[in-house]
Amino acid sequence: MNKALGIDIGGTKISWALINFQGEIINEIEKTSTPKTKDEIVALLKNIISKYENEIDFTAIATAGAVNNENTGVIGSTANLANGYKDIDFQSLSTKKVFIENDANCAAWAEYKIGASINCKNSIMLTLGTGVGGGIIINGKLLKGKSGAAGEMHFMMSRKKERKCTCGTWDCFEAYASGNGLRLTGAEIFEDDNITTYDIVEKASKGDKKAILALETWQNDIALGVLGLNNIFDADCFVLSGSMEKFVNTETIEKFVNENIVTTPTKIYHAKAGNYAGMIGAVLLASELI
Amino acid sequence: MNKALGIDIGGTKISWALINFQGEIINEIEKTSTPKTKDEIVALLKNIISKYENEIDFTAIATAGAVNNENTGVIGSTANLANGYKDIDFQSLSTKKVFIENDANCAAWAEYKIGASINCKNSIMLTLGTGVGGGIIINGKLLKGKSGAAGEMHFMMSRKKERKCTCGTWDCFEAYASGNGLRLTGAEIFEDDNITTYDIVEKASKGDKKAILALETWQNDIALGVLGLNNIFDADCFVLSGSMEKFVNTETIEKFVNENIVTTPTKIYHAKAGNYAGMIGAVLLASELI
Repeated sequence: MNKALGIDIGGTKISWALINFQGEIINEIEKTSTPKTKDEIVALLKNIISKYENEIDFTAIATAGAVNNENTGVIGSTANLANGYKDIDFQSLSTKKVFIENDANCAAWAEYKIGASINCKNSIMLTLGTGVGGGIIINGKLLKGKSGAAGEMHFMMSRKKERKCTCGTWDCFEAYASGNGLRLTGAEIFEDDNITTYDIVEKASKGDKKAILALETWQNDIALGVLGLNNIFDADCFVLSGSMEKFVNTETIEKFVNENIVTTPTKIYHAKAGNYAGMIGAVLLASELI
Repeated sequence: MNKALGIDIGGTKISWALINFQGEIINEIEKTSTPKTKDEIVALLKNIISKYENEIDFTAIATAGAVNNENTGVIGSTANLANGYKDIDFQSLSTKKVFIENDANCAAWAEYKIGASINCKNSIMLTLGTGVGGGIIINGKLLKGKSGAAGEMHFMMSRKKERKCTCGTWDCFEAYASGNGLRLTGAEIFEDDNITTYDIVEKASKGDKKAILALETWQNDIALGVLGLNNIFDADCFVLSGSMEKFVNTETIEKFVNENIVTTPTKIYHAKAGNYAGMIGAVLLASELI
């Protein structure tokens, strides 16, 4: 059959489509709101999978949350998903193989196989959205760590407890490089706690100097994080994705990083695999691993 | 023969010994000052190797500086070694195989094979000396990156240009977590630029509150870096080595990291493989790779 059902499970919505092993979506993408309880999520997934089960080799799920090294279940809690989500037995949803992987890891894999980082065996994807997600590929394999939770972009950008992070600690890269980080940087510059990310981007587009400073400061924070990551990983390239990446100048970041690097120069790219990189990457990864 | 000549090339001295494939040093360790020119280094190495060539399977060298992915040569410049060091053709020094790897990577490998991090397939060694070295093992393999330069502990601990780092940029982990970082932290607390690392440690041992604060601040900076690294790598364990590690309380760091972690709990160990972990690790690594 050489095709699979790809499913993307996020905190807000669940999307799915048939995808071939070249990473092409071969029917209409469907989507619905993510149910609020574990049982409703299970019922929905069973219903979706049963429709396609006869025409697919397997189901591949890109999900929020960390996924174990066996690609069978979610570990730890996922703040944006129903209680008990981590206890779902995904394999029980289908008579055919069900593969799951973290959505940022899947998207990084899609970029590596069919997107911006093709042939970059050592590449790092940063998803700049409300938060910051990370997917790291080393020597052609996903970095998973001892339990599958690797790739969290919570390394410190200050030792002085200046900005609380959603993870409960202070001054993580995510707290500065995310959309929320831009908002907080803007709030500091405008001395206005009510300013939104949208306000900042809108004002900057009209030439407002404070808003431009907020965007530049935010972009410089991203660049400092990328510099640190490349000193650790000596990566072929970085891919920036997510709703905020369109406000980033990759050339400026690349220049800064390569001028200050201890290891060897890298490249910074905008993501190319599109909004459905998660489910596409899940299918491409599963097609190699199962 | 099942033994090799292990050589450790540092900025100050060169050490060597016969080492078996269990990582045991089987004769007296010899050492001499590192010559000041490339030609003298080459002559010295040839002389050392020629003495042992008939009784070894290969020569394995742990060297300062980043080493390429083929383990044949040094890439980039190494500030503490002679001009032209990176142009040495190490294989030409012997009729038997010559293997080289970065010294921090070799020491991390020795800890993984016979030291503190045995069975930790995902482990990170931090060498706390004048600077900070790093050796990272992922899924039982050294993290080398695209060119071999990975593992540099230069990620930022501040976005505000507070402390210049030896790498030319600002506020790297190394600038805080190193022995020199302790000295600078002490200089800030004592408001005395002439204070030495030795002074700080000595005063602290006598109960001086400022000195104790300097050591605690330094240790907390190390803990913040370890926390960030474990959020990225989800490591089984960290190993602390180098001349400064004896001033670190691993239990305090482990407790802080595990209370604040986004991924899963880790362990912090003192190094166990000893002062010659570099040459031992070089031999153990080469015995698997060549």
